Amino acid sequence: MTFSSKLIEKAVEAFASMPGIGRKSALRLVLHLLKQDKSTTEQFTAALTAMREGIRECRVCHNLADSEVCQICADARRDRSLVCVVESIRDLMAIEETSQYRGLYHVLGGVISPIEGIGPSDLHIETLEERVKQGEIREVIMAISPTIEGETTIYYISKKLRPLGVQVSAIARGVAFGGDLEYADEVTLGRSIVARVPYEAK
Amino acid sequence: MTFSSKLIEKAVEAFASMPGIGRKSALRLVLHLLKQDKSTTEQFTAALTAMREGIRECRVCHNLADSEVCQICADARRDRSLVCVVESIRDLMAIEETSQYRGLYHVLGGVISPIEGIGPSDLHIETLEERVKQGEIREVIMAISPTIEGETTIYYISKKLRPLGVQVSAIARGVAFGGDLEYADEVTLGRSIVARVPYEAK
Repeated sequence: MTFSSKLIEKAVEAFASMPGIGRKSALRLVLHLLKQDKSTTEQFTAALTAMREGIRECRVCHNLADSEVCQICADARRDRSLVCVVESIRDLMAIEETSQYRGLYHVLGGVISPIEGIGPSDLHIETLEERVKQGEIREVIMAISPTIEGETTIYYISKKLRPLGVQVSAIARGVAFGGDLEYADEVTLGRSIVARVPYEAK
Repeated sequence: MTFSSKLIEKAVEAFASMPGIGRKSALRLVLHLLKQDKSTTEQFTAALTAMREGIRECRVCHNLADSEVCQICADARRDRSLVCVVESIRDLMAIEETSQYRGLYHVLGGVISPIEGIGPSDLHIETLEERVKQGEIREVIMAISPTIEGETTIYYISKKLRPLGVQVSAIARGVAFGGDLEYADEVTLGRSIVARVPYEAK
């Protein structure tokens, strides 16, 4: 793509450097900003700058926070005896979306992956142990992706936590709700038979 | 989507206000910026601010420009006897991409559309007439979309320009190169038979 303006070219390149945005989409975004008032661009860049400058990591759970402690950790209505361990902030948000969980979180920042050179010390496991040692936490729920790295991480953390006298659980796995059995993958379907649960008529 | 951070929420809303970006994609872009250094966000917002503040409209052809006259109008190697009339800057870019045209442009800024309340005076038609009156232009090529509004615009402009003694032409229309005849729409196929051209063996 050729541009008759260096300013346009640089703005298009800026957008195109973002994940999932190609040069054609980037151009569309730039032309959109040009059609709007200057204030639109000002508000857009101001929101990003404020976010990037102001955002912090929650001192307790490593969630993104506007202040020292995130809104979830600071919320008195949350059940402080439950901690859900997640890989990333995105997973935390996905669980929050369900509105089914009212405990606290702990964001690991990844999973143990020898191939990518990520060991336990690269993750927020030590701070999780410290939180558990404080005694208020009754149960730690592992909500980690069921990959080999995820399973390794769950195993490692549970080994660390069990001596502290805390209950460690993992989120239920099986065939998805609304999913067709014939389309479920073999491993999931096989394990969901092995791990069958008593049926309770409601 | 619920956010535990107001800063994140505002940044996501800023991205989601752009065309073609939903809230999920917006969140992905925000988390991408958070993963990178602060300088990435600074460069990104600086490029957009510089673009929005610095961009001008070419005094001659209404193309986007970094200075008073755009790079195309200022290019001495361009054929100054040819002017291609386009609806938008995007169409100009599309023609530039083909590398088949070495004349100048004139960006109308839209087409005549009574339904949308766009009359000839809302478009850059007067400045086109003035350019033609200066005498250097030999041919004006209408590269306008073949819609009813487009045809109206072509008709209106050609009526205005013909008395000035300039050749007015329109880009060729017909079945697309590489296109299957059976998939061409009836109007295009019908007109391409009526407007058949002598075949020249190469």
